[in-house]
Amino acid sequence: MIDVRALVFDVFGTVVDWRAGVAREVARLVGDRVDAGTLDPERFADDWRGRYAPSMDEVRSGRRPFVPLDVLHRETLDDVLAAHGADDVPGAVRDELVLAWHRLDPWPDVVPGLRRLSARFVLAPLSNGGIALQVALARRSGLPWDAVLGAEVVGAYKPDAEVYDSAPRLLALQPGQVLMVAAHDSDLAAARARGLRTAYVHRPDEFGGRRTPPATDPAAELNVTSFAALADVLGV
Amino acid sequence: MIDVRALVFDVFGTVVDWRAGVAREVARLVGDRVDAGTLDPERFADDWRGRYAPSMDEVRSGRRPFVPLDVLHRETLDDVLAAHGADDVPGAVRDELVLAWHRLDPWPDVVPGLRRLSARFVLAPLSNGGIALQVALARRSGLPWDAVLGAEVVGAYKPDAEVYDSAPRLLALQPGQVLMVAAHDSDLAAARARGLRTAYVHRPDEFGGRRTPPATDPAAELNVTSFAALADVLGV
Repeated sequence: MIDVRALVFDVFGTVVDWRAGVAREVARLVGDRVDAGTLDPERFADDWRGRYAPSMDEVRSGRRPFVPLDVLHRETLDDVLAAHGADDVPGAVRDELVLAWHRLDPWPDVVPGLRRLSARFVLAPLSNGGIALQVALARRSGLPWDAVLGAEVVGAYKPDAEVYDSAPRLLALQPGQVLMVAAHDSDLAAARARGLRTAYVHRPDEFGGRRTPPATDPAAELNVTSFAALADVLGV
Repeated sequence: MIDVRALVFDVFGTVVDWRAGVAREVARLVGDRVDAGTLDPERFADDWRGRYAPSMDEVRSGRRPFVPLDVLHRETLDDVLAAHGADDVPGAVRDELVLAWHRLDPWPDVVPGLRRLSARFVLAPLSNGGIALQVALARRSGLPWDAVLGAEVVGAYKPDAEVYDSAPRLLALQPGQVLMVAAHDSDLAAARARGLRTAYVHRPDEFGGRRTPPATDPAAELNVTSFAALADVLGV
């Protein structure tokens, strides 16, 4: 790892707890339905997230030009509301619900870990979330990014190769000088295929117990359980 | 200014003192010629900067595909070295000289001013310098950018409209919610033409006395002499 100069991060699940954050915003914004027992915020979050990959596939396949994730979230929200018997939620509330994804909190180890890592490495998100979303998350929690990279910068969604390729190119580094950090082995496999180094972070609570992420990714160069452990391993 | 949510900044001359920084790196890297009196570092910096606009015109006109500013700097450096009788400087030193533009220091008011402004506003460079260059400048001096916007993100150079348009689009704001801050009235005029608000910063020392920038830009909405004064005017 002596050559690594920059760390790029998956965000949803790796940096922030999307499930708890979305559920909290859903409870705040359509609390009447939650109180009435007709809408479960965690199930709502799971369902919404479940439509994430299919919505991006429309763009990945070329069937549709690139649009930022906020646009996809706004569209899939309509389907999720309908599926949860909440068809009558007004448009203004829907727009506000989309911003739930801008108001997610990081896992507790993230901010102190990133602060340590920032002393030696360039840090950037490499997420499918857009620039405005990443700026909102960073300002909310003090994530010390040096730049915002990812889908919206290149107009393509992970796991398209150009997203991974853009990190070394835009940071003026070689692929082997960039370490991709993610809680999902598929993201790391796609990064590795483009020459990036890879670190797997175990986030056992990402799915709230409904799915159990593997404890390690045997194909990753590093396996850690927190950003503090990552800083330890990298000697900062 | 009640509606302004983000401030975007020209960098060379507005945020950093390119002339002193380039001259310092030239003196460090080809000091033998400076000592011998055959090469004047300030004149060298002026000449190099003088080739900046013409080199970008090749891209702006469409005669050449977009390349990052580092590539243009590397090319114009060869001409500047030849013009200063330094044709024999080796390639490795030339590559290092290009990084002079990554090692510029901010004007003294910049970091404390940006820290105050960051409390209320999203802050981003909107420069013709590339992403790696902006990351290097920010890490060198602690510039608290929330994202790196500008030429390389859109593949076009200011004053092309798409560079200015990209700031509100990528920050999910209206053009009138974005304030462009620059020490050059032409940059502000181009920003204003795209609906951005404008603030002129007087930087009397940018050209080391060889040219005298106007004290104000009558067309700008705000006129200030420092980032501290800008924070004062914006009430932060």
